[in-house]
Amino acid sequence: MSDSTHKEDMKKLQKEQREKVKAKYIDRGILVVNTGDGKGKSTAAFGTAVRAVGHGYKVAVVQFIKGNWSTGEQKIFEHFDEITHIVSGDGFTWDTQDKSKDIESAESGWSKVCDLIEECREESKYHLIVLDELNIALSYGYLDVNKVVEVLKNKPENLNIMVTGRGAPQELIDIADTVTEMKPIKHAFDNGIQAQRGIEF
Amino acid sequence: MSDSTHKEDMKKLQKEQREKVKAKYIDRGILVVNTGDGKGKSTAAFGTAVRAVGHGYKVAVVQFIKGNWSTGEQKIFEHFDEITHIVSGDGFTWDTQDKSKDIESAESGWSKVCDLIEECREESKYHLIVLDELNIALSYGYLDVNKVVEVLKNKPENLNIMVTGRGAPQELIDIADTVTEMKPIKHAFDNGIQAQRGIEF
Repeated sequence: MSDSTHKEDMKKLQKEQREKVKAKYIDRGILVVNTGDGKGKSTAAFGTAVRAVGHGYKVAVVQFIKGNWSTGEQKIFEHFDEITHIVSGDGFTWDTQDKSKDIESAESGWSKVCDLIEECREESKYHLIVLDELNIALSYGYLDVNKVVEVLKNKPENLNIMVTGRGAPQELIDIADTVTEMKPIKHAFDNGIQAQRGIEF
Repeated sequence: MSDSTHKEDMKKLQKEQREKVKAKYIDRGILVVNTGDGKGKSTAAFGTAVRAVGHGYKVAVVQFIKGNWSTGEQKIFEHFDEITHIVSGDGFTWDTQDKSKDIESAESGWSKVCDLIEECREESKYHLIVLDELNIALSYGYLDVNKVVEVLKNKPENLNIMVTGRGAPQELIDIADTVTEMKPIKHAFDNGIQAQRGIEF
């Protein structure tokens, strides 16, 4: 491709891009879902939370499964006053072996989420609330998906909510604004390589 | 499902999980690629970089496309001394309209990457180097994929490298340890909703 053809192609792309941006106008908080079996669901939510702090916003993070985030994230949560960090879960489900206890902690987490959302109704206290691994609590049936969907559908307009975890239920996908599936193409683990501290957790 | 059946299922899962972890033993730095057309490629890399800082590690981030990361990320980069942030690109390609200038800045970025990798050879200076949107520079042909693959293949053993951007070339996927495709299921943009500051950028 010659330089001038490239320049014309790029001009066309630039024009299309600008028109696309101009055509979009609704400005409100969104519901984002990161799902799928691949890496990056919680890490992208963590990155989004920290970036929001970089923008000067306040963020709340509710962890539905304890141990999903490492001391790496903990340190950062403690480092920034702008981040409110709540742990609701009680260990990975395959470690607790106690379904009724799991349901209890999922319900306690959800009730905290409802409080956080209510706090945003009068003043925009949080710009973003991250509900980490909520999808797991939903797909295990620890929480009623219709109840959860009802609350999320009626969130304050400016509030952004990000839900992570594999197996997002269709009811949640239906009401979400942005849904991304993290799809594993290959994983170091499959080739006998240990999970890397500071990279994978 | 009864509580006791659930407990047995979970015990089985726990055992499988522990055996899986025990069987894995290779401990070395890995090459991670985040690709696909969906959200979260760069944000997950950003989250990984910040988490590594939380673990007390040093990180270098090289941005191949200027403007990909917002003031939100910039503020965080400036906030942490542990992060070395280098911008190589010169605006989105559809804004520069100058192929030879784009190639020049991609090459200048790559030469900085080679220097950073060399710095890790004698002492483990960086735990992680993020090459943000390198895939774009590769898929536009701004950099020779064989040259890049050769350098990445010969990285110091303990160094972790994370490459982002849609359209990762097969040659890169082949040598990577972990590859995730971020797949868009739906996007707020398609429903006329503006990109949300502090959430999407």
